[in-house]
Amino acid sequence: MKRIPIGIPGFDELIQGGIPVGANVLIMGSPMTGKTTMAMQFIYKGLTVGDAGIFISTNETAESVKDKMISFGWDTTPYEREGIMKYVDCYGMMVDSKLSDTPSIKRIPSLLAFTSMSVVLSDLCSQFWKLEKTIRIAFDSVSSLLMYANPEAVIRFLHVLLGRFKMVRAVSMLILEEGMHEKTVETTLQQLSDGTFRLAMKGKERTLTCLGLIATRCLNREVPIEITERGIAIKE
Amino acid sequence: MKRIPIGIPGFDELIQGGIPVGANVLIMGSPMTGKTTMAMQFIYKGLTVGDAGIFISTNETAESVKDKMISFGWDTTPYEREGIMKYVDCYGMMVDSKLSDTPSIKRIPSLLAFTSMSVVLSDLCSQFWKLEKTIRIAFDSVSSLLMYANPEAVIRFLHVLLGRFKMVRAVSMLILEEGMHEKTVETTLQQLSDGTFRLAMKGKERTLTCLGLIATRCLNREVPIEITERGIAIKE
Amino acid sequence: MKRIPIGIPGFDELIQGGIPVGANVLIMGSPMTGKTTMAMQFIYKGLTVGDAGIFISTNETAESVKDKMISFGWDTTPYEREGIMKYVDCYGMMVDSKLSDTPSIKRIPSLLAFTSMSVVLSDLCSQFWKLEKTIRIAFDSVSSLLMYANPEAVIRFLHVLLGRFKMVRAVSMLILEEGMHEKTVETTLQQLSDGTFRLAMKGKERTLTCLGLIATRCLNREVPIEITERGIAIKE
Amino acid sequence: MKRIPIGIPGFDELIQGGIPVGANVLIMGSPMTGKTTMAMQFIYKGLTVGDAGIFISTNETAESVKDKMISFGWDTTPYEREGIMKYVDCYGMMVDSKLSDTPSIKRIPSLLAFTSMSVVLSDLCSQFWKLEKTIRIAFDSVSSLLMYANPEAVIRFLHVLLGRFKMVRAVSMLILEEGMHEKTVETTLQQLSDGTFRLAMKGKERTLTCLGLIATRCLNREVPIEITERGIAIKE
Amino acid sequence: MKRIPIGIPGFDELIQGGIPVGANVLIMGSPMTGKTTMAMQFIYKGLTVGDAGIFISTNETAESVKDKMISFGWDTTPYEREGIMKYVDCYGMMVDSKLSDTPSIKRIPSLLAFTSMSVVLSDLCSQFWKLEKTIRIAFDSVSSLLMYANPEAVIRFLHVLLGRFKMVRAVSMLILEEGMHEKTVETTLQQLSDGTFRLAMKGKERTLTCLGLIATRCLNREVPIEITERGIAIKE
Amino acid sequence: MKRIPIGIPGFDELIQGGIPVGANVLIMGSPMTGKTTMAMQFIYKGLTVGDAGIFISTNETAESVKDKMISFGWDTTPYEREGIMKYVDCYGMMVDSKLSDTPSIKRIPSLLAFTSMSVVLSDLCSQFWKLEKTIRIAFDSVSSLLMYANPEAVIRFLHVLLGRFKMVRAVSMLILEEGMHEKTVETTLQQLSDGTFRLAMKGKERTLTCLGLIATRCLNREVPIEITERGIAIKE
Repeated sequence: MKRIPIGIPGFDELIQGGIPVGANVLIMGSPMTGKTTMAMQFIYKGLTVGDAGIFISTNETAESVKDKMISFGWDTTPYEREGIMKYVDCYGMMVDSKLSDTPSIKRIPSLLAFTSMSVVLSDLCSQFWKLEKTIRIAFDSVSSLLMYANPEAVIRFLHVLLGRFKMVRAVSMLILEEGMHEKTVETTLQQLSDGTFRLAMKGKERTLTCLGLIATRCLNREVPIEITERGIAIKE
Repeated sequence: MKRIPIGIPGFDELIQGGIPVGANVLIMGSPMTGKTTMAMQFIYKGLTVGDAGIFISTNETAESVKDKMISFGWDTTPYEREGIMKYVDCYGMMVDSKLSDTPSIKRIPSLLAFTSMSVVLSDLCSQFWKLEKTIRIAFDSVSSLLMYANPEAVIRFLHVLLGRFKMVRAVSMLILEEGMHEKTVETTLQQLSDGTFRLAMKGKERTLTCLGLIATRCLNREVPIEITERGIAIKE
Repeated sequence: MKRIPIGIPGFDELIQGGIPVGANVLIMGSPMTGKTTMAMQFIYKGLTVGDAGIFISTNETAESVKDKMISFGWDTTPYEREGIMKYVDCYGMMVDSKLSDTPSIKRIPSLLAFTSMSVVLSDLCSQFWKLEKTIRIAFDSVSSLLMYANPEAVIRFLHVLLGRFKMVRAVSMLILEEGMHEKTVETTLQQLSDGTFRLAMKGKERTLTCLGLIATRCLNREVPIEITERGIAIKE
Repeated sequence: MKRIPIGIPGFDELIQGGIPVGANVLIMGSPMTGKTTMAMQFIYKGLTVGDAGIFISTNETAESVKDKMISFGWDTTPYEREGIMKYVDCYGMMVDSKLSDTPSIKRIPSLLAFTSMSVVLSDLCSQFWKLEKTIRIAFDSVSSLLMYANPEAVIRFLHVLLGRFKMVRAVSMLILEEGMHEKTVETTLQQLSDGTFRLAMKGKERTLTCLGLIATRCLNREVPIEITERGIAIKE
Repeated sequence: MKRIPIGIPGFDELIQGGIPVGANVLIMGSPMTGKTTMAMQFIYKGLTVGDAGIFISTNETAESVKDKMISFGWDTTPYEREGIMKYVDCYGMMVDSKLSDTPSIKRIPSLLAFTSMSVVLSDLCSQFWKLEKTIRIAFDSVSSLLMYANPEAVIRFLHVLLGRFKMVRAVSMLILEEGMHEKTVETTLQQLSDGTFRLAMKGKERTLTCLGLIATRCLNREVPIEITERGIAIKE
Repeated sequence: MKRIPIGIPGFDELIQGGIPVGANVLIMGSPMTGKTTMAMQFIYKGLTVGDAGIFISTNETAESVKDKMISFGWDTTPYEREGIMKYVDCYGMMVDSKLSDTPSIKRIPSLLAFTSMSVVLSDLCSQFWKLEKTIRIAFDSVSSLLMYANPEAVIRFLHVLLGRFKMVRAVSMLILEEGMHEKTVETTLQQLSDGTFRLAMKGKERTLTCLGLIATRCLNREVPIEITERGIAIKE
């Protein structure tokens, strides 16, 4: 079974080399535990090994995501030129309706525009599929969708969207805020996923845990991590 | 009373040989405890002893179900040719609207199309009934129905559907995710059933428990199991 | 005060000979504790002592009820011919719309057809009333009504229906699944009743308890029972 | 301050002689604790000392109420003839639409007919008021109203109705089932009342407690009672 | 900062002389703890020192309020003649539609007539404002409003009404029943207020506590009180 | 990274000099813990160092806010003349519809007028942005919005509004009452924020805690404070 390294040295080894191709995983954690950083690192790692990347943002513009990645030294510009990195910006046009698409940024008019999101993502996926690329997708975050639509609608949307990702063997990371949603919503999202990772912070101690991952002996152990200027790293 | 072996050697003996003809049972468990595997094993076992099989999938395409079965060595192709194995795919057309029926796969346009499901299943049942076949049905999963319709509608749908299964003396297995639904919904589904099995995993230990089964002295004991490359087996 | 024996030897003595004429009682219990058996036994006992019987089924066809009664040796055929045993089948037509009435079976088109149920039951009651028969009624089950209509509608329906039963001095048994409904619904149904019996099963031990019965010193004691091939019997 | 004895010898003394004129009280208790008996005793006691009585029934016909009163030796017939005892039957016409009014029984077509109830009760009150009678009213029960209408509607209805009772200085007893309603509904009803009594039964021990009564030093003590063939009596 | 004494000798000293001008306070407590008495005492105290008074009643007629005040020796008649005491009766017309206004009583047709209440109160306030009077307002009770309208509507109504009171520097007392409302409703009302007092009764012991008051060092101490024939007094 | 001092000497040092430019923070606390004072101090501090200020009030008129600021010695008049201080009054017109705009006060007709608020705030922001001013915004309070609209609408409004603030690099403080809202609403608002401060009061002890702040090592330590006639100060 082909596996995709997340790009956290030391941690990928603990999950038998990475996430199996075709799987979707949930990244859970409280605010400021590093969920977005982990998603960016995962996308950038992919670009460096020849995978295609899609970053879907719902809380900030694509430009702001890109700036944050650069601050970690992860400049996606060359990969955008190469045509293998795309941003899907679901936030910008709500804040500034004059924003428009660029070659590497697709804008969705509103977080409620599920159909539009679906079409754009399906198109990007089939484009990359034709290039025979392994596709990495980050969705930051599902929690924002749940601010705009009721849980039932969001879950049905993801139920189908994740099926489409699976058809092109994409590996996707969905970010979910902990404590913001009903327990049954969290459980249902976990049931839709092929695995779950949790980021946590107690005082100054940060940890990353694999709570379960398809086809993987996942030790369910809290691994101490730190967030350095080069991203998430396992702490010795 | 005629009984139908599930196909888990050692376990069938513990429930007096299998599930009584005409009964419907619930398979409960958390994600990745082996519910789908148990349902596949039950269907395949039937095919090998001359029973007819219907596998209803709501989370993946029929093709994906078939692939998974093959990975356990359970290739249904010869039985499909014989006309005694049918897949009812309630998921594929939502992900890819160009998918169509094949001789052994019936597609339902959406998980909300309860009437369509009802008609297709009644037809298949009466077909097999005329062939004087014992019918085995797997429904994977009721939890997905509960994502698309409210619990009342799902329960009324099953209340009638299970009545139809009983009229053709079919044995059916309904899969339910634990923890995803209101407690009263779980209890109501148990009340609609003639029996309940629970799959669980604690650390690396897996267990299967019969929580109750009509006309059966069911010991309510957690039986240690393992999932091998040949399916679920009792652990010595 | 005239009392009607349930037909469980030994237990009737504990409740001063039986249920007072005109009373309605609730039979509560978890799945497979013997509620339906108790209702059938109550109806059959009545037939053997010259009372009229009405069995209302909401989870299976009248034919299936009758089969189960026969399996206990309680064949109602002679009493049907005599015209003092009637089945009201609220389930069959939902599963097979071609089913029709017989001299002793009335079909209700759907569990939502409260008016139709009301008319049929009032008619049967006044028929038996003219024959100067004591009337025994079993309703299996109220829980199914609660799957199809909201609790308020069901409670108002029963509030009036039970009043009609009382006007013809009928003794009725209403079956209710425990744990399937909101606590306040259970309490309200108990308040509508003139008494409550609970069937329970702990491991292999079965018990029957009278939780309260109008005009009766009811000891509120769990009586050990067993279910034999001749129905429910007190255990020595 | 003029006080009205309930008619339970010994207990009236404990509450300084009875309920103050113009007050409304709540009688709370579980099923079969004697609430209806207490209301009947209160009405009958009034008749024997020259007060007017109104008994409002929502769970049984006026005829059935009267029969029960007679079974305690409380025959209201002479007082009906005198024109100082009236029954308001809110139940009978729902069960048998052919029932009609008699000189001493007013029928309300349905428990939902709040306006009709209001008019009938206002009329009866002003009739008795002109006769310069102290008026006693029993309402059995508020819990039934709560089966037919939502709590907000019932509370607004009572908020106004109790104001009308107060204008004619009537003393009213409202019966409420315990455990059947939301806690906030119970608290709101207590807030609408000028006092609350609770009837309870533990095993075979029955008690009556005054939980609070306007202008009365109410000891909040559980008084042991028994229900004899002459009604409720304090136990020595 | 000008302060207004409540009129409970000894207690006013504990809160630095009284309630600051322009403040609104909440009086919380269970039934029969003296909330209405405290509001009446506050209004009457004002009249005796030259302040204007408005008493808004939602549970009884203005006449009944006045009677109760007289029973404490607080006859408002001279102040009504002087034109500085007004009753706003939001209850009477619901009970007796023939009631009409008097020079000192304004009737509101129903507790749902928020606009009408708003207009009447604004008019009275600006009348008194022109007379350069300090205005005292009692609202007995907010809990009744919450019986007739949903919490959101009541809170929005008070959010604006209290702003109008503040514009004329009125001091207002709003009465709230404890335990009758959702916790979040109580908290929101406290947040709308400039202070909160709680009346409580444990056995025979009564207490009054200042839970917080704007611009006041409020000791948050339970002060023992008694209700005498002259109103609330601190217990030595 | 540029940081903006709040203006609480000693405390700003604890958070590395102040709030990062472009960040929005939540100020949580129970009634009367100093939330409004902190917001006023933050705005005034900015004016004295050349920043622009916007104070949005939802519970009192702009005039009342200004009066309170003056009582702390924070007179905004000179800055209003200079054109760098603006009040957005969302309350006044609901209480007195005759109020109108002034050069430094913008009135919003109602707390429900989200679009109007949005337009006014965007205009003010782009005005200040052109002047190349750092912008400080205080929103007192989000809790009032939640009284007028449902949480979903408020959260979506803020999700976009905060994005607009971020585009002009404004630093904003949003005030939230603790205990008045559902826990999930509080968590969601925290997730929308870049940091959270909590004000608390235990007995007479007041504290201020930084619960988290973007790009800041925030010690999560309760700092004792006092509210003096010059605003909030750290206690030695």
